[in-house]
Amino acid sequence: MESFVFPGNIEPEISLIASQPIPYMRTAAFSAIVKSSEQMLLNLIGCPNGRIIFYTASGTGAMDAVVANYVSRSNRIFIISGGSFGDRWRNICDYYNLPSTLYKIPFAQDIDYEDLEREVALKRPEIFLCQHHETSTGQLFNLEKISAICKKYNVSLVVDVISSFLADPLNMSDLGIDICITSSQKGLNIAPGLSFVILSDRLSSVTFKANGYYFDFKENLKNLQRGQTPYSPATTLFLQLHERLKRDVACGVDTIISTVRKRALYFRSLCKQYGWKVPAETPSNCITGFFVNRNADILFEKMIEKGFYIMPGGTPGYFRVSHLGIQDEESLSELARTIHQIELL
Amino acid sequence: MESFVFPGNIEPEISLIASQPIPYMRTAAFSAIVKSSEQMLLNLIGCPNGRIIFYTASGTGAMDAVVANYVSRSNRIFIISGGSFGDRWRNICDYYNLPSTLYKIPFAQDIDYEDLEREVALKRPEIFLCQHHETSTGQLFNLEKISAICKKYNVSLVVDVISSFLADPLNMSDLGIDICITSSQKGLNIAPGLSFVILSDRLSSVTFKANGYYFDFKENLKNLQRGQTPYSPATTLFLQLHERLKRDVACGVDTIISTVRKRALYFRSLCKQYGWKVPAETPSNCITGFFVNRNADILFEKMIEKGFYIMPGGTPGYFRVSHLGIQDEESLSELARTIHQIELL
Repeated sequence: MESFVFPGNIEPEISLIASQPIPYMRTAAFSAIVKSSEQMLLNLIGCPNGRIIFYTASGTGAMDAVVANYVSRSNRIFIISGGSFGDRWRNICDYYNLPSTLYKIPFAQDIDYEDLEREVALKRPEIFLCQHHETSTGQLFNLEKISAICKKYNVSLVVDVISSFLADPLNMSDLGIDICITSSQKGLNIAPGLSFVILSDRLSSVTFKANGYYFDFKENLKNLQRGQTPYSPATTLFLQLHERLKRDVACGVDTIISTVRKRALYFRSLCKQYGWKVPAETPSNCITGFFVNRNADILFEKMIEKGFYIMPGGTPGYFRVSHLGIQDEESLSELARTIHQIELL
Repeated sequence: MESFVFPGNIEPEISLIASQPIPYMRTAAFSAIVKSSEQMLLNLIGCPNGRIIFYTASGTGAMDAVVANYVSRSNRIFIISGGSFGDRWRNICDYYNLPSTLYKIPFAQDIDYEDLEREVALKRPEIFLCQHHETSTGQLFNLEKISAICKKYNVSLVVDVISSFLADPLNMSDLGIDICITSSQKGLNIAPGLSFVILSDRLSSVTFKANGYYFDFKENLKNLQRGQTPYSPATTLFLQLHERLKRDVACGVDTIISTVRKRALYFRSLCKQYGWKVPAETPSNCITGFFVNRNADILFEKMIEKGFYIMPGGTPGYFRVSHLGIQDEESLSELARTIHQIELL
């Protein structure tokens, strides 16, 4: 299969790492892998003095962990929702009976940042939860503008960068983000199963809540000082992560992002050629979300029959193609041609 | 490395599955893998009409999930602790401010079941949390006797079978166990990263608590009806799991367990030969825990240098060797010989 869903196509050398004999995690060698992965990831995300909590869990596990450890009933919570992942922040807060203000953005549109500032000035939240890229629509939000508002009104900024990290420029320190979360199978392009909470050094003296045993920040941070997780981690994924991070550091963030961007722009030129509307006002480089013109009801299954994974979009006629992982102009052209052939059936 | 820690040595055909192109989880094909894995696992554990929740998480994640979803402050909770995993049940209950009675068993000893019954008769608990095999000491508890007490006093029985499943005989229905938990890297002998909560059909009408978003039983069960997990699962591990379960079903539980048992008995004969004391009163087939006579302080690292992973034991001079995964008498003899050589240094 050619995969245009996360994590995309992976280099055989990285894939094969998952088949190596499984290392024992309670060794100095494994601790060294964890410690070195932590520092590389911190450098890549622009937070060299921060800390990272590694979870064997999906990205939603990391979102849950942030709310359970960092958000209290006493905090005034402000949530941006531009789709199902923004709604997930809200659902998690509701689940724990944490009242929040939901600021809804219409499908695939950008935020009206002046209106957002008025709302923030009115509500005076203490914690701001948002996505950098709302993966369900393809819309990228402007973190510089969000960050400026949060700084002005002294709001703690928490950003889900699950699908924007290593696809769109991001520097935690410059933006003054307190917490970012991401996961293994997006920009890091390895198998799913690991997620990460990146804590800025500004939080080093914060006392976290204790509301989730497995996800507890304090217990995880204590163990990570010696390069260990408190419970058995997905060791094979850690080995893949370590190799990927070494390659990413060698390549450099700017080159990685510009490569993803080129693919995204190329595929969008094909969308234009075939007459598929890309609704995102300022799309992320991570995916292209687009409306096909015909046969949307059979497209997903027919594409699998023809050897392509693409993502259904949740909105009728809407599909998403990831630009992460191995792909080139030729493979994107073939993908678009195949979608078009199904439209013509 | 020769691995005598979990998951042990794995057949190359199973290992290589983790390196296959990564499947997209939102497909009928992936749902079929999840559904078929669920039924095979239910059959292997003797609970054909139960349900399984699959978590991308370690076994502790599944323990956390059980306490967060099934145990309330209003329940009288009774915990068996024969070591660090029994203590973990207690720690999780303490973490959530759930008062419990801790019934302590001395290191590597069996339970005095008559005394246990007196305590249960006195405390009249509603929920009983225990291990089948206390992995930190090697001691196997008698689930027939525990189950008889729970049935007599109408206590709901929850058992961590993380390291006994497919190592020691276990039939959930016969024993009247309400919930079992296990994980991918023990008897199932695949990479770590998945854990499982197995719910007996007696719980089909129970309303679970909502105290952990990622681990929420209700949300997970709703999605599993169509063979899906609510959040991105560790798909590569699911592929390994499916193949492993097919092989286990074809082989049969009795054959699997008798193979593990033969290895355990053989290694214990070597322990006797070298004068290493095995303290467990009724040891599980899963591991052999033993005291070496000399050089315990350098043994773990020296064994790694010589190409063997064994488990340090937490008690001075005490080590553990797993009997899961590929191993034969020759490899066990070489292992014992190597340990002895280090004793003689």
